[in-house]
Amino acid sequence: MRHHELFSRPHRRLNQLTGEWVLVSPHRTQRPWLGQVEQLPPTELPTYDPTCYLCPGNTRANGTRNPAYTTTFVFENDFAALLPDVPFERVSVRAGGDASGPILLHAEAERGICRVVCFSPRHDLTLAQMTQNEVQQVVEVWVAQYNELAAIDWVQSVLIFENRGAMMGASNPHPHGQIWANEQLPNEMRKELATQTAYWQEHDRCLLCDYLALELSLGERIVCANETWVALTPFWAVWPFETLVLPRAHVGAIGDLADEGRAGLAAILRELTARYDRLFNVTFPYSMGFHQRPTDSLPHDGWHVHAHFYPPLLRSATVRKFMVGYEMLGQPQRDVTPEQAAARLREV
Amino acid sequence: MRHHELFSRPHRRLNQLTGEWVLVSPHRTQRPWLGQVEQLPPTELPTYDPTCYLCPGNTRANGTRNPAYTTTFVFENDFAALLPDVPFERVSVRAGGDASGPILLHAEAERGICRVVCFSPRHDLTLAQMTQNEVQQVVEVWVAQYNELAAIDWVQSVLIFENRGAMMGASNPHPHGQIWANEQLPNEMRKELATQTAYWQEHDRCLLCDYLALELSLGERIVCANETWVALTPFWAVWPFETLVLPRAHVGAIGDLADEGRAGLAAILRELTARYDRLFNVTFPYSMGFHQRPTDSLPHDGWHVHAHFYPPLLRSATVRKFMVGYEMLGQPQRDVTPEQAAARLREV
Ligand SMILES: O=P(O)(O)O[C@H]1O[C@H](CO)[C@@H](O)[C@H](O)[C@H]1O
Ligand SMILES: O=P(O)(O)O[C@H]1O[C@H](CO)[C@@H](O)[C@H](O)[C@H]1O
Repeated sequence: MRHHELFSRPHRRLNQLTGEWVLVSPHRTQRPWLGQVEQLPPTELPTYDPTCYLCPGNTRANGTRNPAYTTTFVFENDFAALLPDVPFERVSVRAGGDASGPILLHAEAERGICRVVCFSPRHDLTLAQMTQNEVQQVVEVWVAQYNELAAIDWVQSVLIFENRGAMMGASNPHPHGQIWANEQLPNEMRKELATQTAYWQEHDRCLLCDYLALELSLGERIVCANETWVALTPFWAVWPFETLVLPRAHVGAIGDLADEGRAGLAAILRELTARYDRLFNVTFPYSMGFHQRPTDSLPHDGWHVHAHFYPPLLRSATVRKFMVGYEMLGQPQRDVTPEQAAARLREV
Repeated sequence: MRHHELFSRPHRRLNQLTGEWVLVSPHRTQRPWLGQVEQLPPTELPTYDPTCYLCPGNTRANGTRNPAYTTTFVFENDFAALLPDVPFERVSVRAGGDASGPILLHAEAERGICRVVCFSPRHDLTLAQMTQNEVQQVVEVWVAQYNELAAIDWVQSVLIFENRGAMMGASNPHPHGQIWANEQLPNEMRKELATQTAYWQEHDRCLLCDYLALELSLGERIVCANETWVALTPFWAVWPFETLVLPRAHVGAIGDLADEGRAGLAAILRELTARYDRLFNVTFPYSMGFHQRPTDSLPHDGWHVHAHFYPPLLRSATVRKFMVGYEMLGQPQRDVTPEQAAARLREV
């Protein structure tokens, strides 16, 4: 594999989790860059910021005062995109106003819950800088939140994610993530459910267990690993330094892991984010999140929990990859190969 | 429709062209913004820039000198992501190294051609500022390029697009677009082919003809129109001011339009981009491009040519919509409704 000629020439790779393709242009890494250069984030942050709406004891936009929390803190998003009390309604408009014509406009009410999870009372920390014990507390909050939201009968999907850095739309550097619970499976969950279920039914095995075993045997895309978790650049990665983080054990949700597995998750998150930060000597921006087993009442035995990290940076702290014209209208395109990206993340 | 309660509460809408959903949160437009604020583009550009690699007579990175062109100018991209001479090769690696196991790594060589199209010798113009005659010349170049590339037997897709503005990854403000021709249909083309073909086969009619007729009868999402083309905010739009631009006639490619239809395209592009620029008094950034009939040898009778405009700005010249955590891991989410967006684009 390592010296395959194909991987030094333009080619496309199939994403086994979504069924979609990514275009890889390994010969293009020499391209000069004259485009937009990003602003660097401030390097020094105070441990407490009196104007931050996430710091302990401060007042938020809606007048609520945060408790003087000392570990983590969860609250309902003050500007939630989803609301729990939306009456069901469906609008379908058919071609030609004809009652038997094909439906062209189709919309449905969607219930949901949006929460914010502060990872630490400290304004200036990131997951990479927190202690093992502190990150483990974040993992426990994620487990409790997933379980609590999964228990609501109409919730089918619980997405736990973090947007880090202004470049990824984070409105505040205070370490925090979000949770959006949905009444219906979002597109990406739907695609991954279809592929994982098909593999499970056809082969009587788990897609991601098999994939992980293959990657561990090949080694070239592994970034780091511990006894319970592995981080790798997936063969079909889209973003320059995209990674997939998954447990060695076949479980559908973080909460199904024993203590050791939860500690392993905290450890690999700390290690991976520290590697990202060292790559360009900057607090690496990214969006990351967990794809956990859908929370309808079906078993979904083929689902293997995993996290995706999607970082935008391409060649330095200020030059990012743009997913624009061709990518939006055609398909994602990348220059550096996942194998090269993994090698660089292993080195730092 | 106009006063439907559902459209003032969180709901999801189905994209008929891709089969995917978008989440709409109309109640969320009041959210304060403390996040990243974009830099404004320079307001004054010279008509000629001696350092621009697209201006007439200048030398490009690879030493080639541009001709002293006076209308449009097309050349092969000096840093092409796709190359025409890639030998065919396929790599498939199966689970467990077992010859009968399921394929997990799958990659194929991909041939292609990447070109750059300069819209004008003037460094400082945009489509909105060019004359009807000048934009018509751009349309004729697009037609000629599509036809030329479609005639290559291995080319299945010809994507003509423009990334405008640093925010959308454009590396140079000189008015220009790109063309990427592919050996295989990119993901987005593939989805639209499936939906348009299914509709054509099931109903013996064209999906976009029916959709356009419905939108024209409802009116609320129409932005502007002329005798041959219409611009509207599709019911399932993802970006705040996303539009769909399509001909009234059922044709699969721009080149199938008579002179009147081509003139109509130039006119609607000028009008739509001028409206965008007036919205926040800034040269509006966007990625736009045409989805034209696939260029394999099949008829694809159900394909209706159209352009998508994907502009990132949300509430001012410096505040954009971020498609990040939830959007990347779940599904696209928008605040302002397509109906509100159309109304604002009609007003300016
Ligand atoms: O115009 P450029 O510099 O070739 O490149 C730009 O458009 C390409 C096609 O959408 C993208 O792949 C690049 O990320 C973007 O920066
Ligand atoms: O953290 P915020 O400000 O709520 O919002 C951020 O994350 C959301 C979920 O990914 C996105 O919809 C917003 O565009 C982004 O700015």
